[in-house]
Formats: sequence, structure tokens, C-alpha cells
Amino acid sequence: MLYFIGIDLGGTNIKAVAIDKQGTVLIERKTLTNAHLGKEEVIKRIADLILEVKMAFKYPVSAVGVTIPGVINMKEGTVELLPNFPDQWKGVVLGTILTDIIKLPVYILNDARAATYSEKKFGVARDYDHFVSLIFGTGVGGGIVHDGQLLLGSRGAAGELGHQVVVPNGMLCGCGNRGCLETVASGPAIATAAHRYIKQGIATRMRTMIQGDLNQITPEIVDQAAREGDEAALEIFKSVAAYICNAILNLKAILNPEAVILGGGVAQSEILVQMIQEGLDQNKVLFPDSVGEIHILQSKFHDLSGAIGAGAWAIYLTEKNMSYIED
Amino acid sequence: MLYFIGIDLGGTNIKAVAIDKQGTVLIERKTLTNAHLGKEEVIKRIADLILEVKMAFKYPVSAVGVTIPGVINMKEGTVELLPNFPDQWKGVVLGTILTDIIKLPVYILNDARAATYSEKKFGVARDYDHFVSLIFGTGVGGGIVHDGQLLLGSRGAAGELGHQVVVPNGMLCGCGNRGCLETVASGPAIATAAHRYIKQGIATRMRTMIQGDLNQITPEIVDQAAREGDEAALEIFKSVAAYICNAILNLKAILNPEAVILGGGVAQSEILVQMIQEGLDQNKVLFPDSVGEIHILQSKFHDLSGAIGAGAWAIYLTEKNMSYIED
Repeated sequence: MLYFIGIDLGGTNIKAVAIDKQGTVLIERKTLTNAHLGKEEVIKRIADLILEVKMAFKYPVSAVGVTIPGVINMKEGTVELLPNFPDQWKGVVLGTILTDIIKLPVYILNDARAATYSEKKFGVARDYDHFVSLIFGTGVGGGIVHDGQLLLGSRGAAGELGHQVVVPNGMLCGCGNRGCLETVASGPAIATAAHRYIKQGIATRMRTMIQGDLNQITPEIVDQAAREGDEAALEIFKSVAAYICNAILNLKAILNPEAVILGGGVAQSEILVQMIQEGLDQNKVLFPDSVGEIHILQSKFHDLSGAIGAGAWAIYLTEKNMSYIED
Repeated sequence: MLYFIGIDLGGTNIKAVAIDKQGTVLIERKTLTNAHLGKEEVIKRIADLILEVKMAFKYPVSAVGVTIPGVINMKEGTVELLPNFPDQWKGVVLGTILTDIIKLPVYILNDARAATYSEKKFGVARDYDHFVSLIFGTGVGGGIVHDGQLLLGSRGAAGELGHQVVVPNGMLCGCGNRGCLETVASGPAIATAAHRYIKQGIATRMRTMIQGDLNQITPEIVDQAAREGDEAALEIFKSVAAYICNAILNLKAILNPEAVILGGGVAQSEILVQMIQEGLDQNKVLFPDSVGEIHILQSKFHDLSGAIGAGAWAIYLTEKNMSYIED
């Protein structure tokens, strides 16, 4: 039996899992990222966590997958940009550095792509060969599976589906462009919309729910209010759902997927997901049903999707390299 | 030596080429489509044209590729929608019907995808494994090549790049959605913009160029006026270039291509292409140069790109099927 470690490097935590080839999570650990201490310290923390899992685990490990929340040049094997880390890690050969310390093959991948791949390998999309995923968290990440394979583009950076423009000349996005899906459908974007309603004095039960503390507004609060019939909360989700529908219709025209996976905290809201489904049902544009039908799926792995996806990626590349050797 | 016939079914003409495996055009023919006479008559005209080329050609032909200006379900081998043909051809098994008449293998493909593939196989994109193409004619077609292969999606309908929304709630598009790139960057859309300037009495040399006959406005007239420094014409192209840039930036985020090919009549304008290039140069968003650089290419085959692409597709599938047999 072969075993793998998956590491998910986030802005706050580093998560780790040990999995078998069926994706069963055998061990789970986490530690603080402490990104402000600089990349050497963070890389040391990743290596220590891998070694900790290895020690706690009684079987030998074949390979390690590591996700990062940023852009990777997979042709060169380098980190190109970690937008939310103070030193941005440009040019860091993370896989090679970690391999030198932990003496195991290490494969790196973008976190949203890893989460996408986890659903193909072990999750809700096992039976789909063509799908896209949209992951709504602090940002909006994405991934594409085409013909059963993770689609990576010329240098490994394809799949940034949250950076489609849905509001031309809209709000400035972290990516430098304006009006990306991320600016209107991420967790913070939804919270900001709720802030606006409250500050403008519009009647909403969200005001009492947070007892006046705007910091307590989260997409979960908006969802709870929406479930209780709050007009303002429903209005916010209606607008968010419409933007997400637009993005999905664009992806349908470009990629002709069979399914779209909605993941991340925001997509936990059944009301929002239902609004998106209704929006798509009402917009049967461009293609006849026979080529344009899209199933909406909710992601399976939530918080662990990155780490499990990292492990799944390590499994995939290990098997691919093995078959190369056998050829 | 193997030879192939490529057929490009258009709204006005059916074009045919005979090519060798290097893409050399050995024979070229065309005939009227007469779509108004119904699908049986059009299919008969396609078959007759194939037989005419076969007769005129002294070598045996291995296979035939046929493009259509519409949606094909490639999983089922059926035409799903020919939006601009009166009877729309829904469910027609075109390849099988033609094979029965002409006694040769027939492969069907969307016309814009064929044009895209012609550039990979024999044109300006031979050295690129990841690119997208945008083809500006009566509509705006597109195609995607990923890892050297034409990307077709779950049922063969991927690549409708002209149906990205660039103007939310914009003008109604033929596809049923609103504000698609096609509504603002197709040939007719550019002509309509020029009409508006002339009708609104804005100073432009386009008025005298067409001697009062609005039917004479074409993207070529706008280009000529722009080259002569006409402000209105330059204004039109500036706006069109900005929309096209937005679409390319979306495709960059989604697919991470190395290059974008601009084809069709509209993309013959060097001024427009230069504006698009400048727009992209000024919008270095999302990715560092090392993963986000995109080369702009102009298509090579113009009027024959569909027919040559159809032939190239027949070559590709013939070789693929041969290797299947050998396996």
C-alpha cells in the first residue's frame, strides 16, 4: 500500500493530511503559518509539519503534495506570486527546497486547483470528465477539469475563474483589474454588501443579529437572515447569484462543461446555490440542452479540500512518473 | 501520399479544397449554399461539390472534413443547431449521410474550431501548444488549443469565445444572451456603430466615403477612415479594441494561453490590432510576465481557413484512427 502527505499552505494555517490511494484521511494536523516571519520561517514550518506527520504515521510515505494560495509557474517549478504573503515568494523553488529537507518527492500546485482535483479524484465529480469549480472564500479561486485531466495552461496558471470581469470598470480587484467576480462574490464582498445595508439604515434583521458589531457580519450571517426571510439578505444573495450565473454562462460558452462545483464557505448557503440553479435554468442560452446542460454540485471536502487535493496530486504525479519509468 | 478534401459550409457559399498532408492547397472550388432550399438540397450540393473535387483530382482521397457554422454534438455526431439556416438542421447526422453518398469517411467540425485548428496545423500557431483564436466576421467565433490539441468540451461545443458577456445587460445577441462580445465586435456591430455616428451628424469622412449609402459601411471603410486619421473611426476602433482586450484578459485568467490569434475580416485592420496590443500591454494584471505573457498573432488563411481546417481535421482523425487500428 502507498501513502501520501498533502499540505495546504494558507494565509493563517498550514494544514496536513496523510492519505491512502483511496483518499481516506488517516492523519490530520495543522499549525500556524506565521507568514509575517518571512518565507524561510514558513518553509521551515511546512517541513516540520511534514516530518511531524511522517513520525506520527507508521507506514512509509511515497510523496508529498503542497498547495500554495498563489501563482505557480509549473513549467519552471517556481512560485511566481503569493499575493497575500508579505514577501510574495517570487522565484522560490519550493518543491526542490522541501525535497532537500524532507528527502521525499514534493509536488506543488495552486490551492484552488488542488481543491478542484480532490473532487475529481475522491469527491462529488468522480463521474465527470469535464467540469469547472468555483471556490468562494477570501478570494474566488477556480479550477478546470477537461477530459478527466486538470487543465493547467501554458505555464500552469490556468483556472483563475474568479478573475473574469463581471462588472466592467467595477471595483479594483487584488489582481490589478476591475470588477472581477472576486470583487462581488467573495466572502468579504458579501460582508461588505451587508455592511452597506446596515449603515444606510435599511430595515434588516442582520442589524440585531450582530448586535451592532459590523465585524461579526459574515456570509453565514447573511445566509441565516436570508433563511429567516430577511429582504435585505435575500437581495444581497440575488445580486451575488446573478453575477455567479454570468460567470458560469461565460464558462459554459468557453469550455462546454458538464458540471460546475461550488465550493468554499459562501457556497454552503443552500439558498444561494438554489438561486444560482434557478438563474441557470432561466438562461438556456447559446446551446441546445443536448450540449449545454450543466449540473450544479456542492463540494465535498470543505476545509480539507486543499490538503486532500495536494495529496491527490502527489498520487497522480507519482503514478505518472512510475508509468514513465515502466515505458 | 495521402490526400484530403476540406469543405466549409457557409451561409452564402460552400467552399472546397483538396490538400496534401502538408496543407498545400491543390484544388479550390466553390458553389452557392442556397440554404433557403432546405437541408436536403444543401446536403446534395455539398455531396456534389465533394464529388466534383474528387473527379477533378487525379489522386485518391483518404477522407473529407466538413465544417458547419453552428453547434455540433461531437459525442453523438449530430448537428445540434445551425442558427442562421432556415430549418436549423437539429439532429442531422451529417457525417453519416454524406459518407453514404460519397463513400468516404466524413468528419464534421464547427467552422471557427476548424479555422483555429488550421493555424495550429499549418498556420501562424504551429509553434504554440496553448492558444486561443477569435474570429471576427458576421459573428465572433473562437477556438482553443490546449497542449497542442483542439479543446472541445464535454460534447464538442467548447470554444464559443465570442459569447462571453462584455456588456452586462447589453444588446440582445443571437445566442439569446445579452452583451456578448459578438454584439460589439462583429463586422455588423462595427458597421452599426459607424451608422450611428453618421446618422447623428457627427463629423466623419466616412460620410463622404460611402456617398450617402449606409449599406456601403463595412469594417474596411472604418479602417480606411481610421488610417486617414478620422476621429470618429478611431473612436469606434478604440471602443471595439477595449472590449476585445477585456475578452482576452478573461481568457488569460481562465486558460493561461501563450498566444491569441485574431482572424476574420475585422482583424485585417492593423490599427485595430495595434490598439488591442497596446491595451494588453497596459493591462498587465493578475499574473507576472513569466506566466502571463500573450503574443498577438494575425491569422494566415483568411477566406480558406475553414476549408483548410476541415481538411486538417480529416487528416488528424484519419491518423488517429489509423493508430487505433495499429494498437
